[in-house]
Amino acid sequence: MSDSQIPTLIELQETMQRIKPYVHKTPVLTSRLINEIAGAELYFKCENFQKVGAFKFRGAINAILQLSEEERSKGVATHSSGNHAQALALAAKMNNTKAYIVMPTSAPKVKSAAVADYGAEIIWCEPNLKSRESTLEEVVSKTGAAIVHPYDNHQVICGQSTAAQELLKNYNNLDIVITPVGGGGLLSGTALAVKYQYPDVKVIAAEPEGANDAYQSFKGGQLVPSVDPNTIADGLLTSLSERTFNIISQYVDDIYTANDDEILVAMHLIWERMKIIVEPSSAVALAIVLKNKEYFAGKCVAIIISGGNVDLKKFSF
Amino acid sequence: MSDSQIPTLIELQETMQRIKPYVHKTPVLTSRLINEIAGAELYFKCENFQKVGAFKFRGAINAILQLSEEERSKGVATHSSGNHAQALALAAKMNNTKAYIVMPTSAPKVKSAAVADYGAEIIWCEPNLKSRESTLEEVVSKTGAAIVHPYDNHQVICGQSTAAQELLKNYNNLDIVITPVGGGGLLSGTALAVKYQYPDVKVIAAEPEGANDAYQSFKGGQLVPSVDPNTIADGLLTSLSERTFNIISQYVDDIYTANDDEILVAMHLIWERMKIIVEPSSAVALAIVLKNKEYFAGKCVAIIISGGNVDLKKFSF
Repeated sequence: MSDSQIPTLIELQETMQRIKPYVHKTPVLTSRLINEIAGAELYFKCENFQKVGAFKFRGAINAILQLSEEERSKGVATHSSGNHAQALALAAKMNNTKAYIVMPTSAPKVKSAAVADYGAEIIWCEPNLKSRESTLEEVVSKTGAAIVHPYDNHQVICGQSTAAQELLKNYNNLDIVITPVGGGGLLSGTALAVKYQYPDVKVIAAEPEGANDAYQSFKGGQLVPSVDPNTIADGLLTSLSERTFNIISQYVDDIYTANDDEILVAMHLIWERMKIIVEPSSAVALAIVLKNKEYFAGKCVAIIISGGNVDLKKFSF
Repeated sequence: MSDSQIPTLIELQETMQRIKPYVHKTPVLTSRLINEIAGAELYFKCENFQKVGAFKFRGAINAILQLSEEERSKGVATHSSGNHAQALALAAKMNNTKAYIVMPTSAPKVKSAAVADYGAEIIWCEPNLKSRESTLEEVVSKTGAAIVHPYDNHQVICGQSTAAQELLKNYNNLDIVITPVGGGGLLSGTALAVKYQYPDVKVIAAEPEGANDAYQSFKGGQLVPSVDPNTIADGLLTSLSERTFNIISQYVDDIYTANDDEILVAMHLIWERMKIIVEPSSAVALAIVLKNKEYFAGKCVAIIISGGNVDLKKFSF
């Protein structure tokens, strides 16, 4: 079954052409001052400027575009309270497709409001994985909608690879590419895009210490699920799937971790010096660079800034 | 005396060539969602990405480059606790020139630290205009340094015009250009750059209600100083000078005001939707667009985002 296979270079390249008209080609920013602090040359690929404010839109739009007419007419479904929910809702809307989003009743109002704004139907469930999954099953059996998993999905991984593809088109001087890792969709797509074309470029993942299941899985050689994760990087709480673990084991060079204090310092630095808003999950990558200076010293390092969705209500002006 | 004259188109164009190697050519960003809310097509010229995080660097570098070798050898001086202090300090450093910055003892530590980081000498004074001015005089009589006023300076106005010059080079479809107004340096430079080349494009200024001296001056036809200004837009507290008032009277089409609540709504919208950090002074421009929708409806409107220097310590993550 092709779905369990690892995406090929041709598939990644076809995906780039397919979704190009729908996605923002996001800018790559640099900061002289952060380079000085890091002692390396850093290139920030800004997916916080992507539609819905996160790279997730790339995977969602590709998944929908790859459905048949008939499948699309029945809609798409997922359970998510995060960026994937908004991404799928918008991608569905752009293709006149119905989106069913299962959300826990504990989800922040701003998030459910954004999903509803994109015209998706929200189905509420209890705030636990079991209720999420059983509610999603119900929705699917009633509607026939196609499930689009946030990362355990071939087409989603192909879509997430396009951020790195855009990057590599303009930067052929890179030594290292870093992405954060949660479920592993962005990391898998990025690793494939890099290694297929530039096998000598290192691919490094950045993970919060408080949710270091990918680190454990990678180092131990078997999939360790995320249990009771506790980190400010709320986009990186999920476990790898067999599919993403399989890719990561083969194509990723290493995984480094940082704790929440280090993540906050890095996030603050980006906000203050680059004047862009990035979410804590995105700051993990800079945090590991600042923490492992000897390793990154003098290198050209691209960092994929995964998103910029932060609850600004927390800030008092 | 040429210094009291209004800069000519040739001078503005020569300034652009002169400072090009030193400044960032800042990007112009757009937001589909903010366009929908505003009912207009908005182009944000992002000087928050300029060196030192504000347009002020343009004027400061031009002023220093226009000094003679001998003048430069004696250094430059100003009193400022804001963006101009950092801009002059960095511009001086880049030209191996000494900078003397008079700062009130009340200035935030982050600001004085940034100025010191650029190698400038800080001379402390009491936190009032009289002490600022007398301390600056002392510094100048002792050192022979050239005073670079933040806006009442011919070369500074020429420098500030270059943000609009960059903008106009890529956008010839504009109906309106908006800048915030404090002392009037950015507004003067922008108005000249626009009107010399596109006399039909309207130039509008945006000012906080709590510091509406430019509004009063413009409407009343005579210079009204800023007395006890009170607004969150802390970059816009100063009065116009005769020089800037003279230019603004002739080349600006209108001035609109917004109150602090409206400014905060606009700032929040930019942070949340565009994922960029702008300071309150920059958000005044969007605030007047949202407040006067009928006037701006359907128009192509460029907004010069003046800077992004916000004290992030105020935010708890």
